[in-house]
Amino acid sequence: MDSGLVAALARAVPTGGLITAPEALRTYECDGLTGHRVVPSAVVLPESTDQVAACVSACHQARVPFVARGAGTGLSGGALPVADGVVICLTRMRAILDVDIQGQRVTVQPGVANLQVSDAVRANGHYYAPDPSSQSVCTIGGNVAENSGGAHCLKYGFTTTHVVGVTLVTPDGRVTTLGGAVADAPGYDLLGVVVGSEGTLGIVTEVILNIIPIPETVRTMLCGFASMSAAGLAVSAIIAEGITPAAIEMMDRLAIEAVEAAVHADYPRCQAVLLVELDGPRAECASTFARVEEICRQSEAQEIRVAADASQRAMMWRGRRAAFAAMGRISPDYYVQDGVIPRGRLAPVLDGIAALEQEYDLRVANVFHAGDGNLHPLVLYTGSHHGEGDRALELAGRILDLCLSEGGSITGEHGVGSDKACAMPKMFSEGALEVFTRVRAAFDPDGVCNPGKVLPTPRLCGEVPGPYRPHPLEIAGVATRM
Amino acid sequence: MDSGLVAALARAVPTGGLITAPEALRTYECDGLTGHRVVPSAVVLPESTDQVAACVSACHQARVPFVARGAGTGLSGGALPVADGVVICLTRMRAILDVDIQGQRVTVQPGVANLQVSDAVRANGHYYAPDPSSQSVCTIGGNVAENSGGAHCLKYGFTTTHVVGVTLVTPDGRVTTLGGAVADAPGYDLLGVVVGSEGTLGIVTEVILNIIPIPETVRTMLCGFASMSAAGLAVSAIIAEGITPAAIEMMDRLAIEAVEAAVHADYPRCQAVLLVELDGPRAECASTFARVEEICRQSEAQEIRVAADASQRAMMWRGRRAAFAAMGRISPDYYVQDGVIPRGRLAPVLDGIAALEQEYDLRVANVFHAGDGNLHPLVLYTGSHHGEGDRALELAGRILDLCLSEGGSITGEHGVGSDKACAMPKMFSEGALEVFTRVRAAFDPDGVCNPGKVLPTPRLCGEVPGPYRPHPLEIAGVATRM
Repeated sequence: MDSGLVAALARAVPTGGLITAPEALRTYECDGLTGHRVVPSAVVLPESTDQVAACVSACHQARVPFVARGAGTGLSGGALPVADGVVICLTRMRAILDVDIQGQRVTVQPGVANLQVSDAVRANGHYYAPDPSSQSVCTIGGNVAENSGGAHCLKYGFTTTHVVGVTLVTPDGRVTTLGGAVADAPGYDLLGVVVGSEGTLGIVTEVILNIIPIPETVRTMLCGFASMSAAGLAVSAIIAEGITPAAIEMMDRLAIEAVEAAVHADYPRCQAVLLVELDGPRAECASTFARVEEICRQSEAQEIRVAADASQRAMMWRGRRAAFAAMGRISPDYYVQDGVIPRGRLAPVLDGIAALEQEYDLRVANVFHAGDGNLHPLVLYTGSHHGEGDRALELAGRILDLCLSEGGSITGEHGVGSDKACAMPKMFSEGALEVFTRVRAAFDPDGVCNPGKVLPTPRLCGEVPGPYRPHPLEIAGVATRM
Repeated sequence: MDSGLVAALARAVPTGGLITAPEALRTYECDGLTGHRVVPSAVVLPESTDQVAACVSACHQARVPFVARGAGTGLSGGALPVADGVVICLTRMRAILDVDIQGQRVTVQPGVANLQVSDAVRANGHYYAPDPSSQSVCTIGGNVAENSGGAHCLKYGFTTTHVVGVTLVTPDGRVTTLGGAVADAPGYDLLGVVVGSEGTLGIVTEVILNIIPIPETVRTMLCGFASMSAAGLAVSAIIAEGITPAAIEMMDRLAIEAVEAAVHADYPRCQAVLLVELDGPRAECASTFARVEEICRQSEAQEIRVAADASQRAMMWRGRRAAFAAMGRISPDYYVQDGVIPRGRLAPVLDGIAALEQEYDLRVANVFHAGDGNLHPLVLYTGSHHGEGDRALELAGRILDLCLSEGGSITGEHGVGSDKACAMPKMFSEGALEVFTRVRAAFDPDGVCNPGKVLPTPRLCGEVPGPYRPHPLEIAGVATRM
């Protein structure tokens, strides 16, 4: 790396905030997508907006790419370094800058962990709603980049619903604010574009979050069904009634088996389990909960268990939260897929996954944010068996094709990152990708900010395959007819 | 206008769908901002997406600007024609294409009136939430362009919250879909950018709207206060409690006087009136309503009237809805301003407006979506008095400066359009305006789509004044520190 840039970075951050020793750099070679690894040329650890701006400016002037990174829990390689590039790590920016209970706003630096926000306001009867399962460690900066979801985003919306404003260091090192105190500002909704842009439009250094009152009551039930389709019909029936549960999670028999082996959560031993949670004012919650129970019974639930107290509820959630890690109990290796289908298309997709299990002679466990159609198939394999890892990856890719053919999406909450950039042309037409590229260039005309992520490039993806052509308006995102 | 373009437009639409006769063109010379008038060269009335695409293609090839128009109820001149340009009028595209009660989706053409959507699903227990006061005539296409609000958007969100997907004819005449069946699609949130873009990024020809169940119950009260500040404190106290009313509207003495003269709504004769409405499940609504009443009493309401039935509720709303038109009873002319302030800054802004009334020797009536800080000062004047119209306009402009100095915005729901494009540099820095311009160019590199709206140009605004520089993060929208 150019010595002038190294010197500029050293000036930009406090002593000890620049890492260039090869061994130390390896800590930053990947995020949660450990299959992709690139060692960066330098890592900086700024402590303020101005320091971030100085680092970005230095990179921009040298035309050296940079990648922002938080806790590194992302699952799509969004924080994967660029070879010969700089990683700007925001973990030293972990101050809660302002708590305004009356205005229901908390202002934080990007390195604050998701759960810390709720911790800071719980005593005042509030919390921060989006709850990715990594919430105890994942950072708000990463949540903004990925527009993170979580089990309770069905009712409360993804991160984008809760971000009121950000301070953004643009890719040329200027400091800008987007959003703020008032709703529906004039001009284009650039705040909405930045949330979920996976670190490609700049680096967020302050975030104003909306917090909400803790609901008066929470009620939770676990229902066992004889098949995933039966559980899926119950979900459709609940939603069709106009009920929006705080969460509806679904797990199949294999996932239940793994969870029971791992945490003994005492789940019903059925082909499918629904975990349904309602929250809100006590009176409303009681009557709606009774109605959900009735719907589950009418949908031929084999067993219904209602959490009698907080500890029983915690146990029900413990099973769900442990699901991914629990796979280790029944398989040496597994791959977590993340796809979306329209809620009503569960049955054909599950049939398709079952057929793929046969075809590839591999097992797939299904964990599902059923309310918003976000599917997490876990493809089980044994890495030490020759070729099985590749077969598992291929099967996982075929599941995405299945999601797309049903009008769904290649990712629900884990992002595109480096993992799925080459799959974007399956979902979007050339014309649509071109508009994405131009919007990106509006922020980053020099292409220095997290290049190679989100959008496919011939260099990364080789010859980009022809666009997938779904029926107009049946797809998520953008398709072009002409 | 070039005869080749006229011929291409004639081919693009059915017989009778092209207007070029000067007298007929005058119908389209302005929208609700009647002070701005430009006669276009041609008007086309397409009946399908493909016809719109053919019209746009023809304009694009000829590099002739075009402007989309619906019912023409907009108040900021967003549908003002461009001289020598084409108006693409969408009022013949008024089909409801699909009603999916179970999926809570309605797909409409852009010329469908806002209220027709609710009419189409009311029998099934649903409605479309955003309710601009022109909802019986204003069209969904215009609502999408302006990201329209309404009294009940405090609880339910602006149009952008309820638009799930659109079919967009891009400024070069291609047909694209944005959004669709699944939530949180990958790539940048272009749907969010298009909603509220005031017709500058293309023409929306189909819209998928989210509908919601009609609440079980609605409760409404009218509270009189001895001052606007007292009413403002009551609003803050309600919101601080975590209560989100369906609507909180505020009116001052002058507005009450006008309303009483016009519709005899039997409002309390106080210095300020709050109209508070709650909706939701019966049990929740009852307890929250009681709490709101208590808060208003503690905030020293002089009088509280609770609507006993639907007809009393309708009468309360009739007063509020008639407020703008009622000004005609107390003043020959009036100008409707639209600004936003942070909710807690009501008192100083009202003091400032009172001082301006003195300074300009004019009266201002205040109508206020108090919950979200959206102020509609009505500046009263007599057009036949020499210079009074200009003084009223100047006073209205000073009110916007006041909103900005309190960290607010130059428009809440009426849009920037041609009316306030030259005021944008008061709110946004040059750097921010540059990013807006580049995002616009990502969709419309040739500048043919509703040019001259939203963003200032030297040709329209003369020398653009230096940017207003608020404290970072205290403004709405975008400001740049460097």
